Amino acid sequence: MAARVTILGATGSIGRSTLDVISENPDLFTVEAVVAGKDAAGLASIARKFGAKFAAIMDKGRGDALADALAGSGIAYGAGRTAVLEAVARETDIVVSAITGSAGLEPTFAALRPGVTIALANKESLVCAGDAVIRRAAEVGATIVPLDSEHNSLHQALANYPMSDVAKMTLTASGGPFRTWDAARIASATREQALAHPNWSMGQKITIDSASWMNKGLEVIEASYLFGLRPDQVDVLVHPQSIIHGLVAFRDGSVSAGMACPDMRVAVAHCLGRGQRLVAPPSRHLDLAKIATLTFEAPDFARFPCLRLAMNALVEGRAAPCILNAANEIAVAAFLDGRLRFAGIAALVEDTLSALSPRYDHPARDVQDALEIDHVARAHAAGLLSNSHPAVT
Amino acid sequence: MAARVTILGATGSIGRSTLDVISENPDLFTVEAVVAGKDAAGLASIARKFGAKFAAIMDKGRGDALADALAGSGIAYGAGRTAVLEAVARETDIVVSAITGSAGLEPTFAALRPGVTIALANKESLVCAGDAVIRRAAEVGATIVPLDSEHNSLHQALANYPMSDVAKMTLTASGGPFRTWDAARIASATREQALAHPNWSMGQKITIDSASWMNKGLEVIEASYLFGLRPDQVDVLVHPQSIIHGLVAFRDGSVSAGMACPDMRVAVAHCLGRGQRLVAPPSRHLDLAKIATLTFEAPDFARFPCLRLAMNALVEGRAAPCILNAANEIAVAAFLDGRLRFAGIAALVEDTLSALSPRYDHPARDVQDALEIDHVARAHAAGLLSNSHPAVT
Repeated sequence: MAARVTILGATGSIGRSTLDVISENPDLFTVEAVVAGKDAAGLASIARKFGAKFAAIMDKGRGDALADALAGSGIAYGAGRTAVLEAVARETDIVVSAITGSAGLEPTFAALRPGVTIALANKESLVCAGDAVIRRAAEVGATIVPLDSEHNSLHQALANYPMSDVAKMTLTASGGPFRTWDAARIASATREQALAHPNWSMGQKITIDSASWMNKGLEVIEASYLFGLRPDQVDVLVHPQSIIHGLVAFRDGSVSAGMACPDMRVAVAHCLGRGQRLVAPPSRHLDLAKIATLTFEAPDFARFPCLRLAMNALVEGRAAPCILNAANEIAVAAFLDGRLRFAGIAALVEDTLSALSPRYDHPARDVQDALEIDHVARAHAAGLLSNSHPAVT
Repeated sequence: MAARVTILGATGSIGRSTLDVISENPDLFTVEAVVAGKDAAGLASIARKFGAKFAAIMDKGRGDALADALAGSGIAYGAGRTAVLEAVARETDIVVSAITGSAGLEPTFAALRPGVTIALANKESLVCAGDAVIRRAAEVGATIVPLDSEHNSLHQALANYPMSDVAKMTLTASGGPFRTWDAARIASATREQALAHPNWSMGQKITIDSASWMNKGLEVIEASYLFGLRPDQVDVLVHPQSIIHGLVAFRDGSVSAGMACPDMRVAVAHCLGRGQRLVAPPSRHLDLAKIATLTFEAPDFARFPCLRLAMNALVEGRAAPCILNAANEIAVAAFLDGRLRFAGIAALVEDTLSALSPRYDHPARDVQDALEIDHVARAHAAGLLSNSHPAVT
């Protein structure tokens, strides 16, 4: 019987990759429900093409547009938070959690149900509420399989080896568009420069995070929760070709590396397969002789302070990762709107963390708790922005 | 309780690496028996240092020297084939099978007993009698763990994934000292040039095989038997830095790679650990940022015909791999003695294969069968040599 797939973030980059893999394996999967943020036309088109039973748009204001676009299709739909949770609540086998940002937290948490496999790309669920998400998944018997290429590679390379044998896990980083730039040039990088990622085609938020290396910092935090690693057991290696995505170093000196073409469909296929490998077209198989050269560099924390901020937040623990993430979302939005220079992203995050982190003596206990911390941190960061914070100029 | 280790080939390169790992973990291992070919003094010194219960020297003529060297130690000893089999027959937990060449076949086969882990470095056991060895191990309940760094890496990268998910396994090759040489220069390479391996410090036979790429060809055959791969599922990738040792490509496009410093002690430690990872010193952990660059090239079968001969022998099947191996042993010995030029190795192997392979319609059924084919092939190759075969000049 075909597996039912619910896609949160269906119109985004990972959603599209998921739909590609489903298209390649039409006998193995059906689309149960699809959720998107604002793109009503895109969502309706996907729902029609894949015969989804339900479509939900997060932006309430786009509900009418979705209704129009689905007219006559017989596909049920809704708009706003309740509709999204209704989509998630539908019986399904696999939930692809690929909504960007803390908006993905509540639906991801709601997807943790007995027997459901969560292909998790929404890193904020783990960054903001890692303890709570991992605990809940274990309690209810949901399976979390990481969908980020780095974490998916680590998951695959770890295989059935016990975590007690792992000395260290390493996430690779392409280095983004500013890898070879000096600090002054990075500080005043433009929106267009930051959006020009060399290897991956992704959404705007994550592309900016890749340029600032905050993305890698969030991934370090995510890996720590996913695999139960101490902060000193996760590190980052710059690898501009994005072929090796993750490395698991065992204490005996052996290393297992997860590799693939820089194509999200490989990790998507692994997650959707749930232990049964799907068959990828030949073009998606790695040809190292053709690639010829792989290079590696130690990360430069001085030019990319966001990575250090994130790794420090992991060490600090408590609510620090959640505050870091919320402040970063505000900062990236401001940068994309032209209200903050690139160097201001790290500055705003750092100042928000310094102000708020001491106020919390524990991590988020559940998703509501995480959303509250997120809310406070966003408000604080936005306040700093509107009060002509020095980072703005 | 400490695990008992019997080492076949104790004075060789892998034997020494094994003893290093045992020295690093004195509470975990005891040395039960040690076997060497001719080096009586070296063998006696090892037996004394590690408190072995039994020492056997393969060369009967070195029995007196061994007796002298062990005088007063209380260590039992013997010389010749019977003594070697006596060493193997002693109750033990792990047998490190690291005798070079077809001489390792009979003792390796004898080591296949219930509950014993065979750390297998003697490739000829699988090349000459792969079917029989794998079948016997399964029948008696012996566990074969590959000790060659390439196969060990593949074994680790495969982890618990089913072979039905594997699209391909790739063994890397350093390319040896002649990787960048043109064909004419390789053809007349000297003994000293062929013995100068860039990455690995190994015995003479395997070092010459690395220069001719016959070593990689034998490893392809070995991998095919070890993992149950069709000939078209094994390939070779030139990787001069010898950091990635093996790659397992799954059908969904994901690749797991086995990596380590080019130090045999990493694979030895993995084998001796039998599922429990030992702790390696920091110097033996991989530092990719320091290594900085990994390169890859497709293999060049024209300049290195031995690799093609071996891969063809695997496709041909029957007794071809065993004949190939025997002819190669004669050819390498003749090359080392100055009786054959480097290009003559492939020529002698090819002519021996052409003459003998059609005579056999099945692979070796057991070790005696394999040794008979080996004997016939050696005699044929030696005959070609003494009859002024064109390859000689």
